[in-house]
Amino acid sequence: MPFIRTFRVRWVDTDVAGVMHFTNYLRYFEACEEEFYRSIGLAFNTVRTKYGITFPRIEAHCIYRAPCRFDDCFDVEMRMREVSEKTITWDFRAIRQVDGNVAAEGYIKCISVNAEWKAVPLPLEVVEMVRQKGR
Amino acid sequence: MPFIRTFRVRWVDTDVAGVMHFTNYLRYFEACEEEFYRSIGLAFNTVRTKYGITFPRIEAHCIYRAPCRFDDCFDVEMRMREVSEKTITWDFRAIRQVDGNVAAEGYIKCISVNAEWKAVPLPLEVVEMVRQKGR
Amino acid sequence: MPFIRTFRVRWVDTDVAGVMHFTNYLRYFEACEEEFYRSIGLAFNTVRTKYGITFPRIEAHCIYRAPCRFDDCFDVEMRMREVSEKTITWDFRAIRQVDGNVAAEGYIKCISVNAEWKAVPLPLEVVEMVRQKGR
Amino acid sequence: MPFIRTFRVRWVDTDVAGVMHFTNYLRYFEACEEEFYRSIGLAFNTVRTKYGITFPRIEAHCIYRAPCRFDDCFDVEMRMREVSEKTITWDFRAIRQVDGNVAAEGYIKCISVNAEWKAVPLPLEVVEMVRQKGR
Repeated sequence: MPFIRTFRVRWVDTDVAGVMHFTNYLRYFEACEEEFYRSIGLAFNTVRTKYGITFPRIEAHCIYRAPCRFDDCFDVEMRMREVSEKTITWDFRAIRQVDGNVAAEGYIKCISVNAEWKAVPLPLEVVEMVRQKGR
Repeated sequence: MPFIRTFRVRWVDTDVAGVMHFTNYLRYFEACEEEFYRSIGLAFNTVRTKYGITFPRIEAHCIYRAPCRFDDCFDVEMRMREVSEKTITWDFRAIRQVDGNVAAEGYIKCISVNAEWKAVPLPLEVVEMVRQKGR
Repeated sequence: MPFIRTFRVRWVDTDVAGVMHFTNYLRYFEACEEEFYRSIGLAFNTVRTKYGITFPRIEAHCIYRAPCRFDDCFDVEMRMREVSEKTITWDFRAIRQVDGNVAAEGYIKCISVNAEWKAVPLPLEVVEMVRQKGR
Repeated sequence: MPFIRTFRVRWVDTDVAGVMHFTNYLRYFEACEEEFYRSIGLAFNTVRTKYGITFPRIEAHCIYRAPCRFDDCFDVEMRMREVSEKTITWDFRAIRQVDGNVAAEGYIKCISVNAEWKAVPLPLEVVEMVRQKGR
């Protein structure tokens, strides 16, 4: 089952074409990811404090299928695609609530780095929680 | 030869990890694209006014190789990858000026739509200019 | 009684100093305003469609008292300060949930304009609803 | 004489009303400030590294007089208004190049804080340079 959070297009998210700017879908995907980690008791801040690591993105991909406009509600669905020793890849979909159509879908790949920005193995606790709750 | 524009990481572009937020590379890629169209006398606004079309993005992809930090200068290189009847795909690279390393690289695919947001053929003038100047 | 909505500082809202960028408080104030209008059945979109008007901002002011950091929750309180023939001024406060301290406070003054961006009187329905529910 | 830098409204800066979002003027004011410090050899990063201080904003005010739209060029003029022991206040104006009209004007007040986010006196070098070059 995907992890789902609902968002609404803000005025500031739109552009002169009247639709949400394409980069904002990725920002809401990330916001959903933040909520996922919080929901499993591993908020980014906890991970930073406890393990000294952060999760910079090393790849992002998004296909845009139908625009969201100001005030539209959309659900972001998030599913774990793959966990490797140092990386996690998440699949995302943004679904328009008004008609159930996919607005955008893609993936984001993150890597575990320490304070010196060197790639390091993901903490086991994170791997296990993500494996368990993220699918 | 690629089309090149130089940008500098602003304070507001950074995040708590001290690096430019991953979505901002895509925003600077788009800013470079805006400058390209202006340089060939076809600013987005001209295209909107003259032909009644805009170019929403239907796909974006980016690989992040090395972070840019506050105050860093980087060159965005832009090359036309493919033009079809209704779409244009651009390749982008962001190169850090300090060491010449690639910070990020990817592509953005745009489609030509009319005021009703229906896909329509690209104006011939645009296709020709992009073919001529975009490679 | 103020109108209140709660928000959480997103990763993308922060900057290299580790705090929410000062312009984002104003963006959340506006998000709260959007929710207020929706709550009284007058979403910005309804107002745009029904009356052909929008509410551009003509003044904004904000004092920053204590920083919000990534993952912090804060309440935005919004109170109507003044309604004139063509303008509405809202007072805002952002309160950190962790300690009840004021993070930021200020006001935003909006004007009613038509499609030609000319100032026009506020629709009576809007004035009445704002007077009734906005204080 | 004011310190002046020119910017252009990006697609992402606009909103569904077709104009630059009101918070982006403040972002461009800050970008101008960044360029000012760089121009006097005191880039924010230098100040952070050399003195261990940053300049969070404690107040911002802006009056919006005429909208800037996509592709519009505007000059940001910046003048030092006041320097106190721990604060600097800057006046800003955004002037539309097309007609010389003021799009927006306001001020931003910054305070000098150390790594613990405590207010500390401004470094003398900064005060002198700002007094000399900022007016």
